[in-house]
Amino acid sequence: MSSQGAGPGRVPAWSPAAADGLRRHNTALVLRALRDHGPASRAEIATRTGLAKATVGTIVGRLLAAGALVGHEPVPDREVVPPVRGRPGRPVRLDGAGTVGLGLEVNVDYLAAVALDLSGATRLFIERPVRAAQEGHVLAALLDLARTCHDQLVASGRDVLGVTVAVPGLVDRRLGRVTSAPNLGWSDLDLAAEVATVVGSDLVVSIDNDANCAALAEVERGAAVGLRDVLYLTGTVGVGGGLVVDGSIARGCRGYAGEVGHMSVGGSTAACACGRRGCWEAQVGLRATLTAVGMQHAEEDRDADPVEVASRIARQAPYDPVVQAGLEQVGSCLGVGISMLANALNPQMVVLGGYFVPLGPWLLPAVEHALAHDVFAPAGGGCTVALSPLGLQAAAIGAAAEVLGQVYAGRLDLPG
Amino acid sequence: MSSQGAGPGRVPAWSPAAADGLRRHNTALVLRALRDHGPASRAEIATRTGLAKATVGTIVGRLLAAGALVGHEPVPDREVVPPVRGRPGRPVRLDGAGTVGLGLEVNVDYLAAVALDLSGATRLFIERPVRAAQEGHVLAALLDLARTCHDQLVASGRDVLGVTVAVPGLVDRRLGRVTSAPNLGWSDLDLAAEVATVVGSDLVVSIDNDANCAALAEVERGAAVGLRDVLYLTGTVGVGGGLVVDGSIARGCRGYAGEVGHMSVGGSTAACACGRRGCWEAQVGLRATLTAVGMQHAEEDRDADPVEVASRIARQAPYDPVVQAGLEQVGSCLGVGISMLANALNPQMVVLGGYFVPLGPWLLPAVEHALAHDVFAPAGGGCTVALSPLGLQAAAIGAAAEVLGQVYAGRLDLPG
Repeated sequence: MSSQGAGPGRVPAWSPAAADGLRRHNTALVLRALRDHGPASRAEIATRTGLAKATVGTIVGRLLAAGALVGHEPVPDREVVPPVRGRPGRPVRLDGAGTVGLGLEVNVDYLAAVALDLSGATRLFIERPVRAAQEGHVLAALLDLARTCHDQLVASGRDVLGVTVAVPGLVDRRLGRVTSAPNLGWSDLDLAAEVATVVGSDLVVSIDNDANCAALAEVERGAAVGLRDVLYLTGTVGVGGGLVVDGSIARGCRGYAGEVGHMSVGGSTAACACGRRGCWEAQVGLRATLTAVGMQHAEEDRDADPVEVASRIARQAPYDPVVQAGLEQVGSCLGVGISMLANALNPQMVVLGGYFVPLGPWLLPAVEHALAHDVFAPAGGGCTVALSPLGLQAAAIGAAAEVLGQVYAGRLDLPG
Repeated sequence: MSSQGAGPGRVPAWSPAAADGLRRHNTALVLRALRDHGPASRAEIATRTGLAKATVGTIVGRLLAAGALVGHEPVPDREVVPPVRGRPGRPVRLDGAGTVGLGLEVNVDYLAAVALDLSGATRLFIERPVRAAQEGHVLAALLDLARTCHDQLVASGRDVLGVTVAVPGLVDRRLGRVTSAPNLGWSDLDLAAEVATVVGSDLVVSIDNDANCAALAEVERGAAVGLRDVLYLTGTVGVGGGLVVDGSIARGCRGYAGEVGHMSVGGSTAACACGRRGCWEAQVGLRATLTAVGMQHAEEDRDADPVEVASRIARQAPYDPVVQAGLEQVGSCLGVGISMLANALNPQMVVLGGYFVPLGPWLLPAVEHALAHDVFAPAGGGCTVALSPLGLQAAAIGAAAEVLGQVYAGRLDLPG
C-alpha cells in the first residue's frame, strides 16, 4: 500500500515525462495478454486488458510494424484468404522470432552467450573457454564475444532488445557497474559502458549477479519452472545464491541480496577468502570440500573447471570411505545453512547448481534430512531439493530472459 | 516472465469467471490513480490509467454510490456551486471515511483492534488485556472484541471491507486456519470461520502471522515508511520475523516465511521450546535474556508483559555489570543472526520491535557492529537499525492495512 516506488502494476506518476512509462506499461499489458492467452483480435485484447480500443489499436499497429506481432490466420476453411498483416478485425499473435534479448555470462574459466526471442525460443548459443589468470584478458574476450553475437544477430535480421551481462560478484545494477568481482580481478568497473562501446549505445546494457540470473533461468526453464519461491545455490569458484521470492528475484536495497556464501554458519572458525571466519563458503566451497575429502587442492586445479573437479570427487566416492565421510560432513553443513534459509523464506524448492550437481547424490540426503528436521514449519514447509539441469550456461539463459522480462514488465521499449 | 500465478499487475486469465477479477483489477487501477495522484475527472482518470472512458465511468459511478469517492469541488470562486455528487465533468476524490478495514491482534497477554479507513486514517482503536493461561478464554475474548468492533463501526455508518486477524504462530492463509500457535494453545483452528460467525459471513476474514502484520505496519507508518526491503524482528513470547522484500511481505510457498526465531544460529546447543537445539530464539528470546543477565525467570513472570520484563532489565543495566555483560552477549548473538539475514536479503533497515525496544540502547551497538563487519557487501549493504515506534499494537495496524491493501491490489471488492 505504500505509495512509493514504481514496480510493475503500479500506475506511473502523472507528468509529461511519465507518458513514456504509461505507453510501455500498456504495451506490456497487450504483450502479456497475447503471450499468456494466445492470439486475439484488437477488440478481444481491449476486453482482456480493459484498455480503450483506440489505445489497443495504436499499440498493435506499432507492434505489427516492429515485427513483434503478425496477423494470425485461422486455419483456412473453404476460400483461400491471402495473409493480411494487421487488418483490424483479424486476430494477431506474438511473433517473437525477429526480436531477441542477449545474455552474456562471464566466469573464471568460460564465457557464454544466449539469445532468446520474444516467445522464449533460443536463437543463439555460444560457449568459449577463457583464463581469468591472464590480467585484462577476460574483459577483452567478453567484449569480443558481445561484438560477435550482436553482429551475428543483426546480420540474420533480428532486432536486439538489450543485453544483460551476468557477473560472479557484487554489481551495482543502477549504474551498470561491477562493484567487486575478486575472482576476475575486477573492481569498480563500468562494464555496461564497456559493452555498449561494441554493441552500440542505443541498446540498454544491464549488469547482474550470475547467481541471480541462474535462479531466473531455473524458474523459466530449469528445475523450478513456474515456482514462485525458490532458493538457488550454485557452487562455482565461490558459493552464490539467487532468491526467488513471490516470482521475482529478491535484490535488496542495493542489489546485494543472495550473498549467502558469506553467512556465518554453525559457529565455524574456518578462514574464508573474504577475510572473515566461519563463512558458509569456507565450509561447503570447493576448496573446503577438497580438504574434507582428503584431496589436496593442487596448484594446477586453481583454474580447473569446478564441475570437473567435483566430478572427480564423485567418481572416487563409491570406493573411498574418507571421501564419503568428507561429503557427509559437507552435506550436513550445507543442510544447516539451507534449513536456516528455509525457515526465513519458506521456499518450495532448493535448486543446487554448479559443482553441487555432480556431488548431488552424496549431498542430497543430508540436505533433505536437515529440511525435514530443522525447519519449524511442518514437513519442511513443503520444500524439496533438486539439482539444476541447466549446466553452466544457466546464468546466460537467465540474463537473456531478464532482457525479455523488462519488456513484459513495461520497463523496456520494443524497437521501431 | 513465468505465465503462472495471478499476482497484482498480471492480466487475469480470460474466462467468464475471470470477469470479476478484471473488474476488481480495473477498480483498483482507478483507486490507486486517485490515491497516488489526487482528485481527477473521469477523463483524466482514463488518461492516467489507460482505461476506456466508458469503463472509468462505470467504475466511478459504482464507487460514488458506495461512498468510496465524492465529488471534489475546486475552491468556489464567485458563484456558489451546490455540491453535486458525480457529475461527469467534475473531478472526484477518494473519500475513505465511510469504508474501513478492521485489524485484530491476539497475543498471550493482550488483544488489540484497529480500524483504518480507505485513506489510511485510524477510525477505531481498542486494547484489552487477556490471559492465555485460561484455556478457551482467549478465543472467546477475541470473538467478543470482533463483535464489539464490527457493531460499533456499523452503528457509526461505516462499511467494513474485511477483517484480518494477526496471530502469533503458523497460519494457513489460504484456508484461514491457524496451523499452530503453541503459546495460545491453538492448533489446527478454523479461526476465519469462528470470526465470521460474529462479523457475518459476507465479510472476507483473513488470518495472518503477527510479525508479518507488524512488518507491514512499519513500512506503512512506523520506522520504515516507504522502504521496500526491511527485516522486522519482534520479541514477544518468542522471536518472530517479518520480511519485506521489494515492498511486499515475503510469505514463501505455504505462508511460513519469517520463522527466523528457529534458525540454527552460531552452533549453539541451547534447548528451544520447539524441541530443537540452537534456535536463535533460545539465545535471544526473553527467557534466554533473563538467564544471560542473571535474573531467574520467576514463575509469576510467565504471563507477564514481555516489554515490562525487558524494561525492568533495562532499568537495572546501568548499575549492574552482570546485566551489562549478559545484554552484550545477547546483542552479539542478535548481530550474528541479523548479519546472516542481511547477507541473504540486503535489507535497507532492520526494525526491532516488542521487548527488543526497551533493551535497544544495550543491544544496538552489537547489532550495528555485526552489520558493519559480518556483511559481505560494502558498508553492511547500506543497512541501518531502528527501534519500532509503534508499540504492541503494530500487528493490529498492519492487519487493518492488509485489508485495504487487498482492495488497492484488486483482490477484494468494495461494498455496494
